[in-house]
Amino acid sequence: MTAAAVPVQVPVELGDRRYTIWIAPGLLHEPAAWQGLPRAATALIVSNDVVAPLYADALAAALASHYGQVGRVQLPDGEAHKDWPALNRIFDTLLADAADRDTVLFALGGGVVGDMTGFAAACYMRGVPLVQVPTTLLAQVDSSVGGKTAINHPLGKNMIGAFHQPARVVCDLATLATLPAREISAGLAEVIKYGPIADAAFFDWLETHLDAVRALEPAALTHAVQRSCEVKARIVAADEREAGQRAWLNFGHTFGHAIEAGMGWGAWLHGEAVGAGMCMAAELSRRLGLIDAATVARIIALVARAGLPTRGPALRELTIAAHLHHMRVDKKAQAGALRFVVLTELGAARLQAVDEALVRETLAACCD
Amino acid sequence: MTAAAVPVQVPVELGDRRYTIWIAPGLLHEPAAWQGLPRAATALIVSNDVVAPLYADALAAALASHYGQVGRVQLPDGEAHKDWPALNRIFDTLLADAADRDTVLFALGGGVVGDMTGFAAACYMRGVPLVQVPTTLLAQVDSSVGGKTAINHPLGKNMIGAFHQPARVVCDLATLATLPAREISAGLAEVIKYGPIADAAFFDWLETHLDAVRALEPAALTHAVQRSCEVKARIVAADEREAGQRAWLNFGHTFGHAIEAGMGWGAWLHGEAVGAGMCMAAELSRRLGLIDAATVARIIALVARAGLPTRGPALRELTIAAHLHHMRVDKKAQAGALRFVVLTELGAARLQAVDEALVRETLAACCD
Repeated sequence: MTAAAVPVQVPVELGDRRYTIWIAPGLLHEPAAWQGLPRAATALIVSNDVVAPLYADALAAALASHYGQVGRVQLPDGEAHKDWPALNRIFDTLLADAADRDTVLFALGGGVVGDMTGFAAACYMRGVPLVQVPTTLLAQVDSSVGGKTAINHPLGKNMIGAFHQPARVVCDLATLATLPAREISAGLAEVIKYGPIADAAFFDWLETHLDAVRALEPAALTHAVQRSCEVKARIVAADEREAGQRAWLNFGHTFGHAIEAGMGWGAWLHGEAVGAGMCMAAELSRRLGLIDAATVARIIALVARAGLPTRGPALRELTIAAHLHHMRVDKKAQAGALRFVVLTELGAARLQAVDEALVRETLAACCD
Repeated sequence: MTAAAVPVQVPVELGDRRYTIWIAPGLLHEPAAWQGLPRAATALIVSNDVVAPLYADALAAALASHYGQVGRVQLPDGEAHKDWPALNRIFDTLLADAADRDTVLFALGGGVVGDMTGFAAACYMRGVPLVQVPTTLLAQVDSSVGGKTAINHPLGKNMIGAFHQPARVVCDLATLATLPAREISAGLAEVIKYGPIADAAFFDWLETHLDAVRALEPAALTHAVQRSCEVKARIVAADEREAGQRAWLNFGHTFGHAIEAGMGWGAWLHGEAVGAGMCMAAELSRRLGLIDAATVARIIALVARAGLPTRGPALRELTIAAHLHHMRVDKKAQAGALRFVVLTELGAARLQAVDEALVRETLAACCD
């Protein structure tokens, strides 16, 4: 990968909060990617213990000519620290620096850093500008786009948060070179997701190019990130606050949520749980008579090729009752009813209530 | 006061987030005031140790026929508890009750309860509906209207918050009968404020009727609350996010902020600090050559008749340097510059940067 590639720019059409996702290898060193951002006296780079040593100097250098003062906060790494004390470190730094209402926050890292920095930007003085600089595949194709921000509560993940759209998203694909293979696979779960819910042609393309994407081959990687962002941008633009089709983005996530919560956060990566969850949601769709067995098999095969689990945890480790409990307390539940994103064909989804009996059958069939 | 008065309804025109402020004595017992609210399986009444024993049963009774489950949270009273641990008690209760995305939060109390419940509603699952039921004069004429919500940070008041408009504001004027006289005076500071910044005729009316309002005479009280809400609603509708004229509502608040922060939060009530702050801001406006001494004298006289201080604290207690320090870290500061809402005439305001020397002179003249 070189810095010479022409950056792809994907617009997210949200009226006066319209913004652009920049995608290319080497963007941390590309001056054009940092021009035209909100002006301010100060900027703050929020990152974590793993990412900051790798990329914070490069980002600070890119911002030096745009902001008089560029501060830094380094959060502890990991979902376990997506909580109030870590969030408060961002506020402490902003207030100690007397950061004003114009201060721009830069989220440099994966989904946790993006969610926390985004929520801090949403709340600091009731809202300051945010720029997402995602350095994981999962963040580049999913969590950095669309304005969802949150922290966890001991009784539930992402329960406290806000919608706060970034002013820009800058995806430097070169940062993925330092990402462990397991994290690449986890990110691919969200890439694959866009096919079944919205784009059958992209699913076909992935069946041909998945190995190249997984190997971070620049052209394939760029297309995969671009197409993922395009689909997500289209859905977010149509339904910013998740009143309708934005819920499709949760395909595989209700089953996945039960796995993550039930097995203990962190035991399965989010993308791993979503990988297995998509296979389960596809099987549920088949049992509802919506798609055929061949389509389910194609989804399972692609998830497997991404290096992801295709089945849920052993039922002796996480019982059906435990699965159901975690699904009912999920944010997506409504008055305790079980609702799932199901496929009506490859490339089309809908949200629907499902009888508990059918969910139990699906869990029994899809877990060991 | 009786429950028979026809409720006044003041609209806040915010497009698809349009809502109505209901104003009358006895609304807690008026079924019409509780019809047409957002539908949900559950509602949660958030109040505090002082207000809940007085009015929570009446509110729960009013809501019983609209929501299947009406929960309650009782927060500790006072600005000192406008913090994360108290906020988290709301989240704890919501999650323990498995409250979903439709749950409606009711803020029953003064400004602290309203700010905290509002911020909880803004953040819980990224936003649930909110109804404000203010029981102090200050909350009825100011803080419950306009969607500003926040908690305090050890390094600054209202530093962490959100804009989250309520679905309705219900001002039962009968609840003011249990309010201490000092709190009535504090609320009158914000009532008086609307005259100098936006409505000279209302200022004239207050000069005639202030004693009746202070005595909670129903017709005068209703008009004072109604006109205050009308002015605030007009300003908020024109500038929801405080990009321009909404800043006028901070008339007297920059000086007042320095008093509150400098004397220790709670030593002066917010309204008391704003009362003195308005006299200081009027004097600053005069020294800028914008208004005459007679106008300053009228403002000082009305603030005094409301039972509020008209001068700042003794400079030996809070030095000019300390005043300036607290003004510079106020949210309204920008890149460290001192900015004030000043009057260009009685009934018209603007925000402008002011030289430190003139601020020093004003402080010297207006503090003992």
